[in-house]
Amino acid sequence: TGTSLQIVESGEILKSDLKILLETIKRRAYEFKHTPMMGRTHGIHAEPITFGLRLLSWFAQLKRDMTRLESAIKTNSVGKMSGAVGTYANLHPDLERYMCDELKIKPDEISTQIISRDRHAEYLLALAQIGATIDRISTALRTGQRTEIGEVEEAFGKGQTGSSAMPHKKNPKTSEQLCGLSRLLRSNALVALENVALWDERDISHSSVERIILPDSSILTSYMLRKLNKIISGLVVHKERMREIIDITGGAVFSGRLLVSLMSRGLSRSKSYEIVQRLAIPASKGMGILKDMAKNDQEVQEVLSNAELDSIFDLSYYLRYVDSIFMKVMEETNEEAI
Amino acid sequence: TGTSLQIVESGEILKSDLKILLETIKRRAYEFKHTPMMGRTHGIHAEPITFGLRLLSWFAQLKRDMTRLESAIKTNSVGKMSGAVGTYANLHPDLERYMCDELKIKPDEISTQIISRDRHAEYLLALAQIGATIDRISTALRTGQRTEIGEVEEAFGKGQTGSSAMPHKKNPKTSEQLCGLSRLLRSNALVALENVALWDERDISHSSVERIILPDSSILTSYMLRKLNKIISGLVVHKERMREIIDITGGAVFSGRLLVSLMSRGLSRSKSYEIVQRLAIPASKGMGILKDMAKNDQEVQEVLSNAELDSIFDLSYYLRYVDSIFMKVMEETNEEAI
Amino acid sequence: TGTSLQIVESGEILKSDLKILLETIKRRAYEFKHTPMMGRTHGIHAEPITFGLRLLSWFAQLKRDMTRLESAIKTNSVGKMSGAVGTYANLHPDLERYMCDELKIKPDEISTQIISRDRHAEYLLALAQIGATIDRISTALRTGQRTEIGEVEEAFGKGQTGSSAMPHKKNPKTSEQLCGLSRLLRSNALVALENVALWDERDISHSSVERIILPDSSILTSYMLRKLNKIISGLVVHKERMREIIDITGGAVFSGRLLVSLMSRGLSRSKSYEIVQRLAIPASKGMGILKDMAKNDQEVQEVLSNAELDSIFDLSYYLRYVDSIFMKVMEETNEEAI
Amino acid sequence: TGTSLQIVESGEILKSDLKILLETIKRRAYEFKHTPMMGRTHGIHAEPITFGLRLLSWFAQLKRDMTRLESAIKTNSVGKMSGAVGTYANLHPDLERYMCDELKIKPDEISTQIISRDRHAEYLLALAQIGATIDRISTALRTGQRTEIGEVEEAFGKGQTGSSAMPHKKNPKTSEQLCGLSRLLRSNALVALENVALWDERDISHSSVERIILPDSSILTSYMLRKLNKIISGLVVHKERMREIIDITGGAVFSGRLLVSLMSRGLSRSKSYEIVQRLAIPASKGMGILKDMAKNDQEVQEVLSNAELDSIFDLSYYLRYVDSIFMKVMEETNEEAI
Repeated sequence: TGTSLQIVESGEILKSDLKILLETIKRRAYEFKHTPMMGRTHGIHAEPITFGLRLLSWFAQLKRDMTRLESAIKTNSVGKMSGAVGTYANLHPDLERYMCDELKIKPDEISTQIISRDRHAEYLLALAQIGATIDRISTALRTGQRTEIGEVEEAFGKGQTGSSAMPHKKNPKTSEQLCGLSRLLRSNALVALENVALWDERDISHSSVERIILPDSSILTSYMLRKLNKIISGLVVHKERMREIIDITGGAVFSGRLLVSLMSRGLSRSKSYEIVQRLAIPASKGMGILKDMAKNDQEVQEVLSNAELDSIFDLSYYLRYVDSIFMKVMEETNEEAI
Repeated sequence: TGTSLQIVESGEILKSDLKILLETIKRRAYEFKHTPMMGRTHGIHAEPITFGLRLLSWFAQLKRDMTRLESAIKTNSVGKMSGAVGTYANLHPDLERYMCDELKIKPDEISTQIISRDRHAEYLLALAQIGATIDRISTALRTGQRTEIGEVEEAFGKGQTGSSAMPHKKNPKTSEQLCGLSRLLRSNALVALENVALWDERDISHSSVERIILPDSSILTSYMLRKLNKIISGLVVHKERMREIIDITGGAVFSGRLLVSLMSRGLSRSKSYEIVQRLAIPASKGMGILKDMAKNDQEVQEVLSNAELDSIFDLSYYLRYVDSIFMKVMEETNEEAI
Repeated sequence: TGTSLQIVESGEILKSDLKILLETIKRRAYEFKHTPMMGRTHGIHAEPITFGLRLLSWFAQLKRDMTRLESAIKTNSVGKMSGAVGTYANLHPDLERYMCDELKIKPDEISTQIISRDRHAEYLLALAQIGATIDRISTALRTGQRTEIGEVEEAFGKGQTGSSAMPHKKNPKTSEQLCGLSRLLRSNALVALENVALWDERDISHSSVERIILPDSSILTSYMLRKLNKIISGLVVHKERMREIIDITGGAVFSGRLLVSLMSRGLSRSKSYEIVQRLAIPASKGMGILKDMAKNDQEVQEVLSNAELDSIFDLSYYLRYVDSIFMKVMEETNEEAI
Repeated sequence: TGTSLQIVESGEILKSDLKILLETIKRRAYEFKHTPMMGRTHGIHAEPITFGLRLLSWFAQLKRDMTRLESAIKTNSVGKMSGAVGTYANLHPDLERYMCDELKIKPDEISTQIISRDRHAEYLLALAQIGATIDRISTALRTGQRTEIGEVEEAFGKGQTGSSAMPHKKNPKTSEQLCGLSRLLRSNALVALENVALWDERDISHSSVERIILPDSSILTSYMLRKLNKIISGLVVHKERMREIIDITGGAVFSGRLLVSLMSRGLSRSKSYEIVQRLAIPASKGMGILKDMAKNDQEVQEVLSNAELDSIFDLSYYLRYVDSIFMKVMEETNEEAI
């Protein structure tokens, strides 16, 4: 029962940490709702998104983490005082009921010498899931701070300077740390799963282990949620750099729409593909701007006007559903929970 | 979306496997509700339980597994058709809605190129939890079949014989196999957690991995649930051996109650402890029956009558709350779900 | 370099802990070289072994652990002072050489900002292997202390008493603890493997993690080796109970040899099997002593004399190669290393 | 014995796969020995390295993987034919010796019903280490192919085209796959460690598990080594882009040496730092070339001539020990092994 109570209390702290992080991410998601940035798959430019959408995707995942954490807390909100093997041999079941009422938990429906360890595992697995989300977010932040990308930056504390030898160098140290620590949340959860198969009415192999993994994972998760909240709160976002990066392939990222547009004017797919490839590959290698090349291309000119080409390369076309995605996520957000 | 659908469909099969197992365990729990057996902690005799209680404890844990599995299925009942980076750049969101309606799932509230992998991890973690429960049960079955214990036995198939060299040897092979396979469910779940932190709007590192772990863990879990169901259905239970084992310590397992009874008659704790220790240790070493030794002990005789001693050593006293524990578990069992 | 040095120094402490444990196990292996006990497979009685053989098998596995630990220490006996990215841009390579000579380690043949983390992983994997061995041994000790088996017992400290309520109850608590802690050595090693794939010339995700897993696993391993040494040193071995257990199947464990003997006298395999089964199954159920039943069986009598039957059921026949197994293991033991 | 033999045979195939990869990496390391590229720590530009050095660092790590693989093969080159519990009850030890001689392995020094599973774990851990190295290398390749970086590229097969919608998009698909699969090698190794603690003289929980993890990990490792070999062999290396990237911070990466040079001319550290910071930060933001800014800065001019400034910004200074690092690695390379 002591362990369950500690899980419930730790879980409540983590819920509140997570709630604060959710609020921060939501606030910043709205702030950058319409800030275009390049979307990437396989690390390669794909199509534009907004930074707000990216934040919103993290928000949605963290909401699911909240749901899982709440389930795990509920699963652990049980107590037992049923004696050495769970039979109430020397204690009346009512005593268990009184104690649990007092502690605002439920009597475990059936226990051995202890509450079954699948409950504790569920809690540590919920933390490992939070860790995995933090790992995803932190990896994106580290990537965004890469010198060649430079879209985002962990805020420098006041008075903080760069490295003593290299004054210009600012490292995403905390994000890196968070990626590392998420590995521990995963591995501790694994140990919790191994703790489930105890012998008979209980063996004590789980006990010293829990004295390590339960506080370690709880404290680490709280630390990580708070650190991430601080990073996201203070995150320096280079909007102009985000915009600039969209164009570093000379507009080749818009080639998909150009292809479709050519086809819609009656050109065959193979013909259209040939035209687009002829123009997009040099553009992606920095040898021109695809829109301009298209405007100057005779075959394109025959079917698409300059105005039409301008609209094909219009960023806002790609981002026209951003508002409705935000609405969809917010509709599904249980405001009370978050 | 394809992957989600496969998870949902596999999950439904697993739910039905789990439901069958729950029914079997419940049936056998009632069958052995009042079959006394020794309860053990640390592998050492503690106080009596019934075999029905042990089965009921497994039943309750499997119900929690069902709840977790259902949550995981729900978490995965989403689809997406939102394009290369989740912006619906080339597809109207309504199409996603139509597709999802058709497939009886919900549109993911927000997606990147893919549905976020925390959902898939939740499913594999639910299977790992089932595996941990199966590991717990199978470990108990293997223990119960140990030659020195002999309380339970995996049923021999018709025509099945013992080992070719040792005709008397019957091994709990399937239970052993289940313990082993639970390790794989755990490790595959761990990999699923590592699959969450994909780069940007998606990298493809998760893909080949999922083609292994998703079918492997789904098929293994189904196999394991069915095998365990077969074992529990056909389990040979040696009631008389269970009863016999309670007595192999000469009644020393009842010494706790003897101690309390002596104290209740006004003897000091230290005096009572001294008396009990003097009698119980030889009894536990096979040098006498504690009840008889107590009846013949002058100091005991002075405060406790033979009738009182008979009642102290009465097994049914220890098991007087068995019915109420069954009632408590069944009250909390959502009959529809199980 | 600091981390490497700490690994080397911790590794040396662990080597010395392991050496002490090896000596203890070897000593006790010789002590019980000819103490017969039942050998079990699948938890079921198979054929007799000696307790010394079991200890010797643990000894041999721990020797392999020593070899792996030594390799890991050697792998980590490297230093680096090659600058921010490993190019010696601001330091002459000779300085690295001097420093390493001073510290009695080798300069890493090539480094980035740091020594590659595959080296650290090798160390933690060696500890996880030691943990797995300790898990194997502790599981056997816990089994041996089960009430129904009672072959071995963790020594009670002076003045230590049984449970306050149950004076007769002695639990293998430390062995249980060791089983549990081995799970942590495994999971920490896994994290070390995840620390290998750092970005570019180094990211710092490994750092906070190592500050947890390196001291935790090192200290835990030392603690576990010392605790196990204490258990094995003081282990109470009930030889007479070991001998008694061999007979609890009424000699059915000797049925394999009876079968072969009947066949060697010209009976068909099926005939021989039928005879043995007819006698061994009741014997294994406590309904007689197989040797006596065989002596009184007409079909057996026709082909085997009483003296021959005595020799078939002779324990020493099964154990005739114990000395040569000990010789083989000791021949392969590098005395210097152990 | 069957399992050991399969491990030895698989291990030999993996050794040969690994040897081929080592040769390829070595060849390409020499090819790019003097190809400058930016070294990065924390994802941020640090100091220059060469691409050859990076390859050489991978080469050195893979050599250690070879050593670990060879140890694991040796550890598994044992056989046993010692009967049901390892006592040779029904077989003469000489038979084991003959069999093992025939198979060119050693008799296990002591066995139970089986060869101890720590040996198998060592093999799977060696594969997991190989996986971790491949993960490190593949992560670097994926990073290098990021659109903003563009230093390296997986070769496109003949006739292979980009995505159907986006003709310019080339993804590092195989490298991504290798990162993913390394997770499985890790998790399978973990299961192998759990397989060590079998009960008594053997339980069969390891068996079905090994039928999955041993072939899966062996085949996966071979596949991964071959795929990586193909990637490295055909890797398209954009030397000019590598050189270009060194300069994208306007030379700010050379600021450390500028700082030291100013101090060597008698300026205080704080004064020097102030000057460097004043110049380097705008340079790193694309607002000038540090070398030119330094040449035009009055305070710098007073202590450093233009010729001296040219030499401070000379790339070859940073790379002057490349040859000696190559020599050091090659000296320590056992040519026979590789």
